[in-house]
Formats: sequence, C-alpha cells, structure tokens
Amino acid sequence: MNYLESELKVVGTRPIRPDGVDKVTGRALYAADARAAGMLWGKIKRSPHAHARVLSIDTSKAEALRGVMAVLTAADLPNIASEEAFVGEGPMNFRDLSRNIMARDKVLYEGHAVAAVAAITPAIANQALDLIEVEYDVLPFVIDAEEAMAPDAPILHDDLFTAGADPKPTTPSNIAKVVKFSKGDVKVGFAEADVVVEGRYTTQPVHQGYIEPHACLATYAADGQVTIHASSQGHFMIRAYTAKLLGIDIANIKVIPAEIGGGFGGKTLIYLEPVAVMLSRKSGRAVKIQMTRDEVFRGTGPTSGAIVEVKIGARKDGAIVAAQQVLKFQAGAFPGSPVQPGCMCGFALYDVPNVDVVGYDVVSNRPKVAAYRAPGAPITSFAVESLLDDLARQLNMDPLTLREKNAARDGTKTHYGPTHQNIGFETVLRAVKRHPHWKSAVKPGHGRGLACGFWFNVGGESTAQVHVNEDGSVTAATGSPDIGGSRASIGMMVAEVLGIPATRVRTVVADTTSIGFTHVTGGSRVTFATGMAATQAAEKVVEILKDRAAKIWDIPVEAVEWRDGQAFPAGSNAGEFDPLDLGAIALKAARTGGPINAEVSLNAQGAGPGFGAHLCDVSVDIDTGHVKIERYTAFQDVGKAIHPSYVEGQIQGGAAQGIGWALSEEYIYDRHGRMDNPGFLDYRCPVASDLPMIEAVLIEVPNPRHPFGARGVGEVPIVPPMAAIANAVRDASGLRMQDLPISPPKLLAAIDAAGITPLAAAAE
Amino acid sequence: MNYLESELKVVGTRPIRPDGVDKVTGRALYAADARAAGMLWGKIKRSPHAHARVLSIDTSKAEALRGVMAVLTAADLPNIASEEAFVGEGPMNFRDLSRNIMARDKVLYEGHAVAAVAAITPAIANQALDLIEVEYDVLPFVIDAEEAMAPDAPILHDDLFTAGADPKPTTPSNIAKVVKFSKGDVKVGFAEADVVVEGRYTTQPVHQGYIEPHACLATYAADGQVTIHASSQGHFMIRAYTAKLLGIDIANIKVIPAEIGGGFGGKTLIYLEPVAVMLSRKSGRAVKIQMTRDEVFRGTGPTSGAIVEVKIGARKDGAIVAAQQVLKFQAGAFPGSPVQPGCMCGFALYDVPNVDVVGYDVVSNRPKVAAYRAPGAPITSFAVESLLDDLARQLNMDPLTLREKNAARDGTKTHYGPTHQNIGFETVLRAVKRHPHWKSAVKPGHGRGLACGFWFNVGGESTAQVHVNEDGSVTAATGSPDIGGSRASIGMMVAEVLGIPATRVRTVVADTTSIGFTHVTGGSRVTFATGMAATQAAEKVVEILKDRAAKIWDIPVEAVEWRDGQAFPAGSNAGEFDPLDLGAIALKAARTGGPINAEVSLNAQGAGPGFGAHLCDVSVDIDTGHVKIERYTAFQDVGKAIHPSYVEGQIQGGAAQGIGWALSEEYIYDRHGRMDNPGFLDYRCPVASDLPMIEAVLIEVPNPRHPFGARGVGEVPIVPPMAAIANAVRDASGLRMQDLPISPPKLLAAIDAAGITPLAAAAE
Repeated sequence: MNYLESELKVVGTRPIRPDGVDKVTGRALYAADARAAGMLWGKIKRSPHAHARVLSIDTSKAEALRGVMAVLTAADLPNIASEEAFVGEGPMNFRDLSRNIMARDKVLYEGHAVAAVAAITPAIANQALDLIEVEYDVLPFVIDAEEAMAPDAPILHDDLFTAGADPKPTTPSNIAKVVKFSKGDVKVGFAEADVVVEGRYTTQPVHQGYIEPHACLATYAADGQVTIHASSQGHFMIRAYTAKLLGIDIANIKVIPAEIGGGFGGKTLIYLEPVAVMLSRKSGRAVKIQMTRDEVFRGTGPTSGAIVEVKIGARKDGAIVAAQQVLKFQAGAFPGSPVQPGCMCGFALYDVPNVDVVGYDVVSNRPKVAAYRAPGAPITSFAVESLLDDLARQLNMDPLTLREKNAARDGTKTHYGPTHQNIGFETVLRAVKRHPHWKSAVKPGHGRGLACGFWFNVGGESTAQVHVNEDGSVTAATGSPDIGGSRASIGMMVAEVLGIPATRVRTVVADTTSIGFTHVTGGSRVTFATGMAATQAAEKVVEILKDRAAKIWDIPVEAVEWRDGQAFPAGSNAGEFDPLDLGAIALKAARTGGPINAEVSLNAQGAGPGFGAHLCDVSVDIDTGHVKIERYTAFQDVGKAIHPSYVEGQIQGGAAQGIGWALSEEYIYDRHGRMDNPGFLDYRCPVASDLPMIEAVLIEVPNPRHPFGARGVGEVPIVPPMAAIANAVRDASGLRMQDLPISPPKLLAAIDAAGITPLAAAAE
Repeated sequence: MNYLESELKVVGTRPIRPDGVDKVTGRALYAADARAAGMLWGKIKRSPHAHARVLSIDTSKAEALRGVMAVLTAADLPNIASEEAFVGEGPMNFRDLSRNIMARDKVLYEGHAVAAVAAITPAIANQALDLIEVEYDVLPFVIDAEEAMAPDAPILHDDLFTAGADPKPTTPSNIAKVVKFSKGDVKVGFAEADVVVEGRYTTQPVHQGYIEPHACLATYAADGQVTIHASSQGHFMIRAYTAKLLGIDIANIKVIPAEIGGGFGGKTLIYLEPVAVMLSRKSGRAVKIQMTRDEVFRGTGPTSGAIVEVKIGARKDGAIVAAQQVLKFQAGAFPGSPVQPGCMCGFALYDVPNVDVVGYDVVSNRPKVAAYRAPGAPITSFAVESLLDDLARQLNMDPLTLREKNAARDGTKTHYGPTHQNIGFETVLRAVKRHPHWKSAVKPGHGRGLACGFWFNVGGESTAQVHVNEDGSVTAATGSPDIGGSRASIGMMVAEVLGIPATRVRTVVADTTSIGFTHVTGGSRVTFATGMAATQAAEKVVEILKDRAAKIWDIPVEAVEWRDGQAFPAGSNAGEFDPLDLGAIALKAARTGGPINAEVSLNAQGAGPGFGAHLCDVSVDIDTGHVKIERYTAFQDVGKAIHPSYVEGQIQGGAAQGIGWALSEEYIYDRHGRMDNPGFLDYRCPVASDLPMIEAVLIEVPNPRHPFGARGVGEVPIVPPMAAIANAVRDASGLRMQDLPISPPKLLAAIDAAGITPLAAAAE
C-alpha cells in the first residue's frame, strides 16, 4: 500500500528518540561493555613497517608468559585462496579480507596485524605482544597513489594484475582496476564548447572518526558453536564474513548486536571478530578485543585520498556540452577503493550529452580503505563542483543559475547507464533560490560558496517483524543496527499503519538468530528497505486484526474496516458492534487463532536517489590562514522525512564531517611510512567550537516506490561541503584551493604566494 | 502436513544435544550470570512469622546505611485490586500474585516477603535487611489442610468465601473452592459391587527442587523501558505478569531468557522480577536479585500436600463399577492448588460407569503452591493406584490384569467430560505384560509394585521461525525456554521437513522482542505445540525454496519437487537441470525475492494425553525401615519419540522425582509454623546413590494431531512412582503405607506396630 496521499498522524512528527535516555545516562551497552565469566583480553601485535616480508614469527616467549592463554598468527587461520564471493551489498574478496585481518607472508602497512594474544589481563596481553619476535625483511614502500602507479614503484602484490586494462597486462601492478564510463563523444562536445575549464584536485584520506573504537567479545564452545557480541553496521555481515573466513557453518554463529557509537561506513566490514573467535577456540575461554584509538587510525579504513582531474566545456549560455574526468583513488593495501561510485557520482547531477570518465583503483602502503558515507562521491564532487564554480565565474553567471540550467531531471540519462526518475534536484535548487540565505547579501569580508551533491541510495535485503503484545502494545523487530534513528522511524511507520500512537510501538534490533537476514546499515537503505519490510509487516498485522475482529463478531472479514487503530463493523454490519482496538483483539488472540504477528523479508528495489545543495559563507583570516564558517545552510530532497529531527541530524552530521574533510582532517606520514598523527588531538576532526549552526532545509519530493515516499538521507549531506567551502574561500580570498584540507598552513602559503596582504584582502 | 507414514531420517535418531557442551563446561549462562555496569544487589526481607498483621515497617535506618541505594515495601508497588485475568495458560489472580511477591497488611507464611533493599554489595544489602524494623501483631496460624478447614481455624483471608459452595457462604473460610465431578450414579454403582475397598492417603508438599535458585537482573531506564534477564519457564509470562503488576506497557518490557537450571513447573510464575524492576526504578541502577536455597524453600511454591479418601467398588470379575474420591489440597497462603486436575486424573485411566469426586482447595500458612510436573495427578494417583492394588489382592487378581480389564480406551467417556481419543493405555499395559521385568520372578525378600499414571498434556500458543542462512545452514528460533531438550527436538523436526541433517539446524530461544508470543514451557506442550509451529514454518520454507528454484530455472513452481534437501525439476522438466540444495538457492536469494524464512504462530489443539505404567521391585530393611529400589521399569506411550534419549531422560527424571516424593522428601514445620529443613541436606531429594538404573520403555502410539505424532512426555512419569513403590513395599513387607513419604522412621514405626521381625519378614 502507498500512503503518499494519506493524511498522516505519526509519520512526519518528532517523538522523543527511543535510545536517547539510555545513551545520555550511560546505560546503553556497546560491544566493549560485554563481559563473560573467565573472559580473556585479546591484543593485536601490529607491524612497525610500511612494507616488509615476514621472515619468521617466534611466539614461544609470549606463550611461556604466565597468564597468556593463547597466541595466534596467520598460520592459525585458514589460508583463504583468492576468492570473490557475494555477501552483503557487494562482492567481497575474502582472500584480501583475511590477509588484512592477519598478515600472511608480508605486512603491507604500518599497523597491519601480524599476531594476537589472549591473556588474563590487558597488561599481560600487552607484555606478551612485546615478547613476540617478528623477523622482517623491510621493503621499499609507497604511500602516494600516483607514485604507486609509476612503473618503477614498489609492487605490493606480485599476483595483482590490473583488471579492466586493455591489453591484458602481463606484469603485476599497483593499479588494481581501471573503470571507464562514457556517453556521447567528448571530442565532439569540447569542439562545440565556447568555454573550457579544467583543474586538478587532490583530497586526503579521512577517517570515519566514529567515537567508539572497534570491539568484540567472542566465545567458541567446544562443540563449535560461536557467540559474538559486537557493534557494527551489520551483525549479519559479521556472521557471514566470520563464517566464511573461518570455515564455520553460519548456523553455528550467533552475533548479538550492541549499540553502535558511530560507523559511517567504517563498520561494514570486520577486523577483530575472526581473531577473537580463534583465540577463544585456542584458549577455551571467552575473548574480548578492543582497539585503542591509535589502532583505529593505523589499522582500520579511512576513505581514499585521491587525485581527480576534471575538464568541462560549456556554451556561452551555460549549457555544459562535454565533461571529462580522471580519478586516481588510493585503495590502501588491498584493492577496493570507491573509485567506481566516484566515477559515477560527479556528473550524475547534470544533463551532459558527452561524458568521459576513467578511474583507477590504486594500492599503496596504507591501511585498506573502508566505506565512508557516500563512498567516492564527496571526492569526485569536490573536483566537479569546484570547477563548476570557476566555469560560472568565466561565464559571468551565478553558480545557482549554472546548475539550474544543467540540472538532471526525470528522464535524464546518466553516463553510467540508468535514467533518472522521480528525482528532486530542480526542486532543491528552487528551494535554494527562495531561501533567505541565498537572497541575503554576502557580508563584507565574507565569501559565499555553493555546491551540490548526489547519492544513489540503495535498497536491498531486509527483514522486519511486527508483534502485537497481549495488551495491544506493539513490538517491532528488525535486523538493522540503528545508527541514525531507524528504531524511531520504523516504529513510527508501523504505528502509522496500525493507527496507534508512536509511543505504543517499541522497535528493537534482533540478533542474527531470531530475525531473517538483513543487510548492513549502509547505503542509506534502512528507513527505505527495512522500513518497507516493517510497513508491509504492519499491513499484514492489520489484515490479521481484521480477521480476528470478524471472528469475534462472527461476521465476514470483508465487513470489517480498520481505521484509527480500531476494527469497525462496516457495510451491512455497520454500527452493530462497538469497535475493537488492538488490546481488545489481542486479549482474545488465543481463542481466535493464536498470537498476532507478521514477519516480512524482502529485497527492496526503487530507492530514490538523493540530491542536496549546500550554501556556505566563510571568512578567511589572512594572518593565520584560518577559515571560519560563518553561515551554513544545507538543502536536501529527503523524499519524506519520517522523523524530521533525525533527518536534520543526519544532514547536520554529514555537513560537519564534510567541513572536517574540507578544512582540517588529514593523515600525516613520516619518512618511514608511519602515521604521525594517530589521535583525535592531532588528526583534527572538527569539534563543536569549529562549527556554526547548520541549518537543514528539508525538501520533500516523495519517492513513489516507498510506501511513505522516503529516500535515504544519510549520505548526500557529506557530498557538497568540500566544494561549497572551497568555493566560499575562493569568493572570500580569490584563492582557488584545489588541495584538501584547506588547513591554515596550506592556505597561509597560498595567501603568501598570491601576495595577498591583510589590507588587500580587506579591499577585495 | 502429516509425516506419520513417512520414512523419517532425522526424527527418531539421537543427535548430540546442542546445549550439552555449554552446560558441562560451565559456559552456559543462567540468570545469576547476568551482569550490568553499576549493578546493585537486591535482597528480600522475609517474615519470621507464619501469620501476623504488619503494623508498621520502618525503613529509615536501612535507607541511611551507606551503600544502600533503594528500599522497597508493598507501598511502593501498585495495590492490585482483586482481579482475575487470563494471561498464559490459565487465569491468574494478580491481586494474590502481587501480595505473594510482597506482603501487604498481613504476612501469611514464614518466608513471606515484606521488604526489599538494593545496595552496592550483597553484604551491605543483608545488613540493611537487618535494619528494617517491622512491627508485627502475631496471629494464630494453621499449617495442616484439614485443620485449616475446621470451623474454628484461624482465617487467612477475611474476604475469601468458598467458591463453588452451595448455598453461597456468608462467612469467610480457608476453603477457597469446592470442585465436583460426577458421572453415572455411585450409589447404584456401589450397590452392584461385589467388593468395596477404601482408604485414606496423605501426601506431603514436595518442592520442585530445581538446582538453580530464582534469579533476575532488571533495569528500569528513566524513560520507562525495562529490561529483565531471567531464567524461567516462560519469558513471555515474566513480561506479562511484570507488566500487569506494575502497570507497564508490555512493549516497554524486554525479557531476555537465560538457560534454566530446572523448573518442573515451579518457574511458571514470578517472585523477584517486579521487585527488581521497582528497586531499579527507585535507585536508577540495574538490580540483581538471587535467592538462596533457604529462600527457595521458604518463599517459593512446592506442590500441595494433600489428604485423599478413595472408595472403589468392583464386581468379582474385576470390573470396577463405582469410584468415589474426596481430595483436600493445600494451596498454601493463597488459593490455587491443583485440586482440579487432581479430581480429574485419578480415574481418567479407567472406564468406570459411576464416579463421584469432590475436591477442596484449602489455604493455610504455608508458601503458595506452584505447579509441579503433572500438577495434582501424582497425589490423586498415589491414592487410587494404591487402592487398586488392594482391590487386586482382594479379587485375587494380578494388578496388571485388573488394570487391563478396566483400562480406558478410545471412546471412553471421562467423568470430567471429554471422551478419550487416540490413547495408548492398553498398548502400554500390553508392553508391561511382554516385558522381562514383569515376566521375571520376584526375588526372595523383594516386593513388586505396579502403578499407572495419566496426564492430559496441553497445546496452546507458540511461535517458531525458520531462517535459511546464506550458506544453506538453518537457524530455528522459538519462544519456548528449553527445559527438556526442545532445542534438539524442534531442530530435528525442522531438519526432517527440509530434508537436511540435524547438524545443519541450530535452534535458539529468542527474547520477547524478536519472536511472537509463546506460552510457558509447561503442560508438556513444547515439542507438541512449538514443534507444530516449527514444522509448519519449515513447510512454508520448503514452499519458498521451491518457488525460488522455479525462478532460478524459469519454470513453473508446480514443476519443482522437493526431496532430500534439494529442489528437482519434475514433470516435463524432469532432468532438465541439476538439483539445487539450500545453499545453492540461498546464494541467489537476493535476486529471487530476498531472505528465505518463515514465522508461524498458532494455538495448537489436539495434544494427545499420555499414559504410563511403572513397575518396581523393592527390598525393605526391617532393621532400619529403609526401602531400596532394586529394579525400576517405566513404560510410557510417548506418541512418537522425536529424540529418544531426551524422552528417556524425561521418564527417568520424572521417576526419580517420584521416588523422592515416595520415600524421603517432606516439609518439616516446628511448633511456630517455621520450616525446619530448608536445605537439600535435610529436605532429602534422592541423590544418585539412592536410585537404581531406571529403564524407560518407549511405546509409540502416534498422536494423529501432531505432524510427527508427538505427545507430551515430561509429566506422565512423575505420576505412578509413589503408588508403584507403596505397592512394592506392601508386597515386600505386608504393610500398606498410606502416608508419604515412606521414610525410614515412619516405615520402622509401622514395622514395629505390626510386630514384624526380621525373621518373620524373611519368611513372608
């Protein structure tokens, strides 16, 4: 059923968040809070070298230490042959995943795991790590993607040959993959152009920066049954990956989800779980492993740093006729950067007849990248949206008009294949135009920037259950970890369908044994896909309730109507009986057929893509190179905001992370290929005092393929900030910053190089 | 679907039990193992008096003690008005339940809870209990049921008037209820009898004796969300009762089941949970309460002690023509003894034309009784089956022939209403006759006894889920706590339906939020009712698997056949494609419609009643009065043994508990109405050295209303032992012991009174 035209009583309101009290009072349980009797502490020994052959590992001294119950190296784990298997949202190379979790033969980055111990105290475990002797043959390393692409670069994998290259390569390379998309003929397009602009942009890898470090508690019983407590973006993912890596029947693994202290994509894969399980197997005891922040930085995935070259041609009237892009994405030590979505997203916003995009997935001696909010899109859009700003200047056109002129609309065919349908980009741009921020004059000394962003959003497999309790209250269960308010939004959709207040529905995240398979919380899919499953389950429950009312009244089910949370006799039976609410029907459930509930599993299709536009005003401190965000407004087509406060929170959070990416976050490597700033103090995520109030403007262009019109909302907002800020800095200072982060030293150097003085700046 | 005629590959085999390793290695988690950060220890102050008015409770000193975080009395709990509501398997009086959990105005037995504290250590909590000052007005008390029935007995409840009495009483009474059943005309019947026997029998209350004392951990969050860890026979029961007693929406309570260390009926109601929740609410911290063994004895329900008078008339040929019974059951401090099933079960085994039964439910100053394995049936059958033994002697007929002559069969109308159908009592008796034990000569100095037993078995509401995992392994979830092997039996039924080995299915007990309502594990209902739900869910999964195979092959679903765990193309498509197993189909689940699983909720009807016969040989030590069980064989119609080892275990366990009831277990009260033996050392459950090997003989008369023919098996085996042993003692010693337990002092007194000397006994 579709509720787009219905009068909604719950969806669109702002009930109090169900996880709020537990989180603010410290009662919420994260994976690190899990305990078990006789539990051991697992610790991981990590490589000090960026690239080295492992000649030998001597664990004998560690094993001899009193209190050490197990020591593990890659030799204790199955040696997974090269294998791509489809588990979760995409293909996963389990050979690489296995080797990333525990190095085999070679270490490929500083922080790469080489051994692990389990001991009765954390202190003994740390002491044991020091007693493990690893003999390395240190190799030349390469950190930068372009350097890694050079013919004479140190090669990370002898068996890695560039996929998608033509002709088929015969020598190994650090270029794991070449991706190409094209549409029309760019040569023809550029020939038609009146103006051609181009630029080269670089971005730094940035970490997802979740507050909660990775942690898990695993037990392996003597009969092979495994229990894992973990916080992640997908406990079914943990189960599937652990089963695959260790060769265990999935049915023998139970994963119990904990609250999650942030994921942003970085918790859609595993690091610790198979190690903890095998340490438990060796020791016969439960094993807990918690990363330190240092380990999170050195050992887990940020998103790619990248080099992006863009060239755009347009006619005088602003119509873009050709667009070309080359993207070189760091994958980290194993293939798998988000270069493909990077190739797709940059031009997905615009109706361009001729497009040519090439992307390179490049391995180098860095931690393997992991998904991070709209993977690839912020990088590509930083380049494209910065260049569009330059194009607008050259055309003497305001940047909003340029975008309006070229905006993708329903029917626009993308350069990667699909044709856009039911999209709201033009509506978003109209909203920008009408907004006081856009209409306001830029204050003296400030600069203003506009940039847009796109994300596909995905659907996929989800399961939801709706249970009517004996008193008529309702429990909804899903397999989706709640990282952005899905417990609230799903409960609200269920309440809306049932016609009861949101407070009568509690939503929980069920463990892997008691709900059907559900993909990771990622791709902005949960409110869309899991919400769709929950809505359908609630609809099934309404049908059951009507059937039970019919039985109680002894009338045909067709003569029962459901409205406002009650069954009414209808038709010729209208008025014959008093209406029955959920409690009244539930009370008689045993006599009318048993418990009332429904479970729906589906593979949701039709996630509506999301578009956003961010507008920001900045001031630049010419003396320090510090950029201050003075005003920030984020516009986004959210389809339908199920719980507007959460949607606003997602937009604010995405923008905040984008601001960090734009202005301060970066990985600093020393000359040995070791990370120099593996802590929040030096890595520099923005803190509250770095950020202005971010105004979120919700535009609702319903997605007709979701019962309430919802679109994914969590990823779009991290796409526009970097270009929006760079464009604002350009507007404020005249400087086009093409290298992120636009940190004070870098901007100061540009200011100095341009000979801008405080006085000159003030005059401009 | 019905598998009674199918060739079974899994059902009927003996796979290794899934909970075994965890239990023998100590890894299994019981409620007492639950921990939470900042957890407090709750303790309960109990009445030292059997009967007293509570004049005042001064908690100020306890509250002032450093480390005490909350103190609670009945004043902190909702004052539940008299109310019977139907929750779970039967009506529950929540007023009484509430007052049993925390005394209000009066204490009604020694050990009755009067206050509770939560403190940072157990020691401080105990200290605080001592500081709570309770002023009592001590009242006269009554322990014995017949004394409590006397007109001048101390009255426990001023507002208790005998229900079912005619005329309606005008003065309060300790007789809570009178139950009557009759059939035919006993006067006419006895007039036709050639032989009339009668006897008066008494039984002691006996405790369920579960090894695990009651325990729970509860948290009440500031927003009213409650989480309870508890081990019980029904986490949905805990949820419902706690919600009702505290006035909380059921959706706001999540109960997480733990492993259970025995229940036997005694964990089908609650003692601690509402107290822990309210202490958590008052303190703002998680609160754990664990009972000591002493508290379990003084504060939780045993089953009733009783006085039973029976009179039976038969013709010379052995045909019983009349039967009469009066039963007086102790209810403990609140109404609710199992006198009604007691009235029903005694004669349910026999086809008697004229029956008259009257039962009295009598309150006295003892702990409120709780369900215990086949509640009421062992008591009534001790009397009836003992008397039948005397009747057989008088008729000069062997006791087996007497029973065969009168055995109920399909079509026998019971005195309480229903007509027996599909019962296996005659088959059981035939099995006894054929068995070597029956055919063997009684050894010199030994005596042999035979007795039979009956239990209804029940069905009721259950939910089961079957999930096909991505690798084709299967997870089954139910809402039934596993107290007797239901994880194994349910997994086996699922495996059988799917056509895969039992080892590919793991069964779990899901918490209250992630599976549909499921009644308590009791009434021997789980393998029947939850098994039926699981079987139906597995059948639904087979339909889905066939549909997915049809999609993969692009042929009509009607052309797909499922056998041996694989989909085969059939009909005109036969042989066209290779068969697909679960793993192959699961791998393509996303592309063919999403995750594969099914949930079924039902209210199962048609639980087949169970019949058993126990045969035992004993020797009596004339010097000490000690009875030694020399040989013990238990015959039972189990319908179909899903996992024969578990069924045998149930029969052995039931017999063992019956042996304790027969020979050693009893409550000893001092002259103040205080229990004198509240510990396993003095209460005397049988230990291994008290027991012989108990041979279980499984007779399989399928129950056609269960897909595999299962009947409940857990309760029947506790019904016959007491009479079987008493009859064997009679056979060995010539003494008819009518008062349980037949403990050494009591038997020795009878030996002395009868003037039996060792020599005489040997000669007999």
